[in-house]
Amino acid sequence: MAKQEEVILLDFWPSMFGMRVRIALAEKGVSYEYREEDLGSKSQLLLEMNPVHKKIPVLIHNGKPICESNIIVEYIDEVWQDKAPLFPSDTYGKARARFWADFIDKKVYLNGRTLVFTAEGKDHEAAEKEFIDSLKIMEGELGDKPYFGGDSFGYLDVSLIPFYSWFHSYEIYGKFNIEQECPKLIAWVKRCIQNKESVSKTLPDSLKILDFVRILRKYFGLCD
Amino acid sequence: MAKQEEVILLDFWPSMFGMRVRIALAEKGVSYEYREEDLGSKSQLLLEMNPVHKKIPVLIHNGKPICESNIIVEYIDEVWQDKAPLFPSDTYGKARARFWADFIDKKVYLNGRTLVFTAEGKDHEAAEKEFIDSLKIMEGELGDKPYFGGDSFGYLDVSLIPFYSWFHSYEIYGKFNIEQECPKLIAWVKRCIQNKESVSKTLPDSLKILDFVRILRKYFGLCD
Repeated sequence: MAKQEEVILLDFWPSMFGMRVRIALAEKGVSYEYREEDLGSKSQLLLEMNPVHKKIPVLIHNGKPICESNIIVEYIDEVWQDKAPLFPSDTYGKARARFWADFIDKKVYLNGRTLVFTAEGKDHEAAEKEFIDSLKIMEGELGDKPYFGGDSFGYLDVSLIPFYSWFHSYEIYGKFNIEQECPKLIAWVKRCIQNKESVSKTLPDSLKILDFVRILRKYFGLCD
Repeated sequence: MAKQEEVILLDFWPSMFGMRVRIALAEKGVSYEYREEDLGSKSQLLLEMNPVHKKIPVLIHNGKPICESNIIVEYIDEVWQDKAPLFPSDTYGKARARFWADFIDKKVYLNGRTLVFTAEGKDHEAAEKEFIDSLKIMEGELGDKPYFGGDSFGYLDVSLIPFYSWFHSYEIYGKFNIEQECPKLIAWVKRCIQNKESVSKTLPDSLKILDFVRILRKYFGLCD
């Protein structure tokens, strides 16, 4: 690695996608400049660095932008490969890790979003079931391993753990208790928080996320 | 590589996702058993190999399933790395390739699906614009290079070229002419078909796809 690294992260604090990147950078011990974006008035830099989606997070490494959180984490793991390897080293393991990361985005994230940011009704009901089902599937994938990465914290752990800060909000609007439904998954959450400073220092307080959710719900015209 | 490779592909002929895998396997010269799935009555093997999404394509390599087309192509490229490298070798190039493959799935595929499988209206109109915009963005990414992979056919070429067999159907229901809108992209299509047997032998005839689209539209209760 060159000695003079310039690493900038364009981010927004409640974003689980941004948290993934912050956790990965912390795992690798990479120093970086954090720039909080105002999503109501995006910076010129964000629009230039991610002209296609105009979304955070964007990692700017020596002037070059990398977008989409799972892709950024994979990039970070490959660039700073001397410390805390996140990705499995075997080809099949890599394919599986990518498969589950994609599942988290398609099922956990999208159903979670429906739970907190749409009104009650048929779609909401379907999302309640699908959300818990998707967490149960992830719990099955975890099995009896301490981490999704096996004995050590890895890519899939990075991918899923940020959602924990949103669990309280999901529970309120989904009318379920995640610990009751997925006790092993919550045991994994506690393990991550206890053993990984990269996680405990990154995840915002659940009540702060709930405040943020309530502000957005008000903005969307949803009742509480 | 072990001498005794067992490679099975569970697929469905009009699927652009399946075509990606077929093109990648052809590029690598891998022999495999093709099994056409009846999506109305999925095989026990498909349900066992992809219990989460129950979708084709699934590549079964020595008994182990790999799912999701872009992930499968990346897997194929890594396993059979001695021939026709598809992925860029540098870390930044890899991240960019993954970004654009994701863009194709989110924008080209989803808007294309709306064009052919939903009734006219607001969503359809939005998809018409977004679809052409997304192809123009891809055309911009291609620039003056012969292939998305640069001088040689690569991962992103594999990811996008299958959609060509659906272009005629998109044009009919989207009421646009893709060659008029994106002449450089069509020049790239012709280059791929002319120079790559993996492509010309894989892509089904556009009229056959249109027949398939019409059958599905009828099934969905859409008029022609």
